[in-house]
Order: sequence, then C-alpha cells, then structure tokens
Amino acid sequence: MKLNIALLAGDGIGPEVIDQAVKVSDAVASKFGHEITWKPALTGAAAIDAVGEPYPDATHEICANADAVLFGAIGHPKFDNDPSAPVRPEQGLLKMRKKLGLFANVRPTFTFPSLLDKSPLKRDRIEGTDLVFLRELTGGIYFGEKGRRDGGETAFDNCVYTRAEVQRLAKKGFELAMTRSKKLCCVDKANVLETSRLWRETVQAMEKDYPEVEVSYEFVDAVAMRLVQWPNSYDVLITENLFGDILTDEASVISGSMGLMPSASMGADIALFEPIHGSYPQATGLNIANPMATVLSAAMMFENFGLQAEGKAIREAVNAALSAGHVTEDLAEGGKSYGTSEVGDWLAGNI
Amino acid sequence: MKLNIALLAGDGIGPEVIDQAVKVSDAVASKFGHEITWKPALTGAAAIDAVGEPYPDATHEICANADAVLFGAIGHPKFDNDPSAPVRPEQGLLKMRKKLGLFANVRPTFTFPSLLDKSPLKRDRIEGTDLVFLRELTGGIYFGEKGRRDGGETAFDNCVYTRAEVQRLAKKGFELAMTRSKKLCCVDKANVLETSRLWRETVQAMEKDYPEVEVSYEFVDAVAMRLVQWPNSYDVLITENLFGDILTDEASVISGSMGLMPSASMGADIALFEPIHGSYPQATGLNIANPMATVLSAAMMFENFGLQAEGKAIREAVNAALSAGHVTEDLAEGGKSYGTSEVGDWLAGNI
Ligand SMILES: CC(C)[C@H](C(=O)O)[C@@H](O)C(=O)O
Ligand SMILES: CC(C)[C@H](C(=O)O)[C@@H](O)C(=O)O
Repeated sequence: MKLNIALLAGDGIGPEVIDQAVKVSDAVASKFGHEITWKPALTGAAAIDAVGEPYPDATHEICANADAVLFGAIGHPKFDNDPSAPVRPEQGLLKMRKKLGLFANVRPTFTFPSLLDKSPLKRDRIEGTDLVFLRELTGGIYFGEKGRRDGGETAFDNCVYTRAEVQRLAKKGFELAMTRSKKLCCVDKANVLETSRLWRETVQAMEKDYPEVEVSYEFVDAVAMRLVQWPNSYDVLITENLFGDILTDEASVISGSMGLMPSASMGADIALFEPIHGSYPQATGLNIANPMATVLSAAMMFENFGLQAEGKAIREAVNAALSAGHVTEDLAEGGKSYGTSEVGDWLAGNI
Repeated sequence: MKLNIALLAGDGIGPEVIDQAVKVSDAVASKFGHEITWKPALTGAAAIDAVGEPYPDATHEICANADAVLFGAIGHPKFDNDPSAPVRPEQGLLKMRKKLGLFANVRPTFTFPSLLDKSPLKRDRIEGTDLVFLRELTGGIYFGEKGRRDGGETAFDNCVYTRAEVQRLAKKGFELAMTRSKKLCCVDKANVLETSRLWRETVQAMEKDYPEVEVSYEFVDAVAMRLVQWPNSYDVLITENLFGDILTDEASVISGSMGLMPSASMGADIALFEPIHGSYPQATGLNIANPMATVLSAAMMFENFGLQAEGKAIREAVNAALSAGHVTEDLAEGGKSYGTSEVGDWLAGNI
C-alpha cells in the first residue's frame, strides 16, 4: 500500500513522540511492504509563532489531501493564563476538527496487566476494563452560536444537534459494538436537555437495525459515577461533544495507563490519530516523554486502513517493551529507564 | 429557637429516612431547648399521583413560608423509561429550585475513617479528602431556552449566565473558602465557552476582595481527572449547573461514604437540605435504607441557623453509631445490621 500521511508534530513533546511513531511505522511499512510518504505540517503554538495562526490553510491543504493524519500534541504555557486571547492553540484544534469533518472521536480505555497498580482505583475495580467512548466532535455547544449581550453582562452558548449528526455518530457506535461485545450505552441528560432527548429518540429508532446490540441509556451524571465504581461494566459508549470531553478524560485516568492511551478522530473522508496526553511542556527536549501512546495511535491508523496484522505487530512490540522493562522513566518504578528515542528504537527494532 | 420546617419526604425510601431525621432533630431540639414545627408537603411521584404535578402550589406555599426545607428523595421507576414524558418528578425538582431561588447547591465530599475501604480508590488517594462543591443551581443550560426546529430534526438548548448570577455563587464560594483552608478552585471550560469566560473574568475580578483566598482556575475535563487521581488536593470548588451536576456525582462515589453524604441548596431567603442519594425504589418499605445522609442533612440545617453545637451533636452521634456498628446493612460488612428506624432510634437516643 502507498500511504500519504500528514504529520502534525505540534508543540512541547509532540515532535519527540511523533519521531518515534514515524520510526515504528517505517519499520512496519518495510516489514509488510508498504510505502509511507510523510508530509510534515505546522500546527498549534508552533504554527502561531511561525505564521500567526494555529491551523494554517497550508496545513489544512496537506491534511485534506493525505490518507490520514498523525498528530502529536498542542498547547504551550504562554497561552494558559488567558483563555480569551484572540489566537490560541486550541482554536486550531477546533478548526481542524471542523474543516476535516472529524465527527467521531474514538477513545479506548484499556489496561495493561503490568500497569494495573498505577491506577488510582483498586485492582478489583479496574481489572478487565476495556471500553471505548465515541465522542461526537464537530457539533453541540462547542460549535453553536456564542457571545455576549447586555453590554457584556450576559453570556450565552448555544448547544445544537441535528438528527443527522446524531445518526452518523450512533451508526459508528452500533458498528463498533457489533465487533465487540454488542453492548452500547448512550450517555445523555434526557431528563433535562432537549438535545439529549433528540439523541435518545434517534438512537432508540436505530435499535431495530442492529437487533443483536443491547442498548442502554444512562444519564451523564450516573455514568460519571459508574466509571469510577465499575469501569469494567462498560463496553462501547456514545455521547455528545461536551459530555464526551469530560467523561473521556475521567475514563483515561482510571486505567493506570493514561500515558499509553491512543485515540482516533474519524471523518467521512479522513481520520486523525493522536495520543490523548498533552504537550507536557516541562519535558520538552529532555528525551524523557513516553512515546507509546503515539506509537499505539499509529497502530490504530494501520488498523483503520484495514491493515490488522500491521497494527498487531505494533501492539505486540509495545507489550514486549513493557514486559522487558524497555520503558521511559514514568513507567520505570525506580528501575532502569530509557530515553524517548531509545524506546522508539527498541520498538522499531522489535517489529 | 422556634423553627418551622417544611418536610418533603418524597418517593421511595424518602419517607423512611426523613422519619429518622425528624426523630433525631426532635431529640436535638429538646436537648437544646428549641421548638420545631414540621410541615409535611407532597412532592415528586407521590405528588404526581395525588394531584397531578410534582411540585404543587400548595407545597410551594408551605416551603416559601418555612424557615427551611428538609427533603428526602424523589423519583419512581415508572417514569424512568420516557425522559420526555410531559410530567416527571425531576421537573418538580427544577421548578422547586427555581421558585425557591435555591441558587447554590452545597455538596461536601468527606471521608469517614471507618469507611475508607469502601472507596473504589486506593486508600492513599482518598485519605484526608474533604472538599466542597458549590454548584450553581438555577441557571445555565438547565433553564435556558430549549426546543426544536426544522420539523423536529434540530434540537437546541441555550446556556445563559449573567454576571450577577456568577457573582452571587462565587461570593458564597469565597466566603466558604475563608472558613476553610482558603483555597478556591473555579471550574470552567473557558477555552471553549463564552459563559465560562464570563465565569472566569467575574471570579478574577472578585479576587481582590478576598486577598487571603488562593484562587485557581481549572478546566472541567482536567477536574474530572484530578478528582479521581488526587481528590484530597481540592478544598472549595465553584462551578456552573451542568458541570456541577456531573462533577458532584463523580466526587460522591470516590469517598466510599456516598450513602452518608448530605447536601444543602441555598437561596437568598431559604435553604433546603437533602441527602445526595436517590429514592432507591427497590428498598422502599423494607426498613433497610441508611438514614445517615438525611440525618447529616439535618445537621447542616441546624448549622445553617447558626446552631453549631446542635449540628455537632448530630455528627458525633453518627460517628458513634459508625464506631459502635449501629448501622444499616449497607455498612455492616456481613456483621450485625440494624433497620432504618432502629438506627434512627439509636441516633436520637445518643444525642
Ligand atoms: C483543548 C480543548 C479545546 C479540547 C476539547 O475540549 O475538545 C481538549 O480538551 C480535548 O478533549 O481534545
Ligand atoms: C434529576 C436531575 C434533574 C438532577 C439534576 O440534574 O440537577 C439531579 O441529577 C441532581 O443532580 O439533583
């Protein structure tokens, strides 16, 4: 296969972890006979510094014409103190999601047996957890009309959803559930919100097309509780943009493996793959960041091209590195640790 | 003191746990020389069954003229399957909050040393946790304009806040922080939402009036994570209605003592006190429900009247019951357990 991959390294540790994912992907490509052309492009604070905006048109061109996007992380502390600054890295993220039509954010939370003790939860609560959130990513209150009135004294944000938006996200949820344990949970606040009632009625109407899938409906506040109590009771969860923002982050910390969690954002034409962690500015340039989440994001990318064996080769290399202790300091438990690039080399060498 | 207390027992186990809080409050009143007149009124599913609506005007009259409201729980499974049914118990709750002007929901999460092992979190994560959420309760997306357009294909919910609404909630937050460790965290999503930017700028402008309070600002997704990772790093948190709904429920399960957590909802003229647990329909009438959360809600009520010693007497009785094992089956760990009313009798007897 010939693959054109847009490469958005971003800020902070982004470039370092992306380098390792490139190494590992190239090793996979050479082993399985594929050819990857990497197309680097600017994004985030790096793009603001260079050209004054976080998702430049030139970057969009490269992404829109690629077969997939591999993304590092964005964000820089110099933007942290003023969330209303006119130009911010996050705006690039939102613009990118919207312009590329990345409507479904796929966020798995799973555990690595060797890392279970890093979880804040007791072992019996977390063992066996393997769930996936599908978060709607281009609608809802993030993109509705927002502003001020009464001379700035009143602020508003409008949350809007159409039935078609709910359907395309829910369809992915049903399809994913069919490949897993056939359990789907629709997370909403239908006892209060009209958009949630639209979500619920739309999903209810789709149930008949997937008779094998067992669908449950839970309120967002109840899910926020049960994720901590019994995360292993969930399988596939679908939800709207803002609930997904909160719940996927909550879910990410329960596994003990947060630094290893990959994600995908899928559109009709293109998909983007990125680690869930941030740009970790304090670690920039120190060669200490854990590259595994980004490497596992590359595994998701191969799998999304239908290249299952390629994805599996990456996952096995990561498991082997964890077992062999070829890990960065965050996972070393005071034992010997390796640099970001050494871990990348080891993984590439073990493909 | 002469106190008129509206008594809203509600549904499910509500009446049973309320009975115990009444017993204990009466014991406190007689010990400290107060006189409580209880004014029972209908609410929830019980009110729908009786008069066709969940917060009848007659109930509002009683509440509005009382010195405080003591509330059990509402909700009945017969309303669970259809969140868009025209008359539902929750609507009563929202109407009650709005009509009584209960703008600040006070939700403490603390731990009882003897219950720490019931937490899903590891002991070192949860030990020492003692935080309070102030959730704004009468604004935001709960009460903004909502509806459908395009023949039902598009749904919307509008989130609206005024500076004055933020100020009165934040003022309570600063004041509460002053009586505690002087740490205040404002939870928002100011990197995306205009209402959150209004929240943040309003709180920032108030900082100068409370120079001793150390204020931090965190995004709601980050708080959803850190609540699970390091709950004991928080003290007072203030937030808007929907974020508060999700985060207070998340916080409630981390302590291991969820069945014991009380809450208060404060307005300008009146306050309401209730356990955070639900109506627990399966346990209705079985005399097994744990009354301690409701009893501790009564303690908050006394304290809100400035009757600190009275509140303390209740808290000490609860601690004594926990130490002595005079508990309902949920806390008995397979040992001897007592009925709801027996625990209530014991607590009243130990005031
Ligand atoms: C940075 C922010 C705009 C973004 C979001 O809220 O979507 C982030 O929290 C995420 O989840 O990707
Ligand atoms: C029942 C529901 C309307 C309510 C809310 O969302 O406010 C409940 O979840 C709560 O937190 O009191």
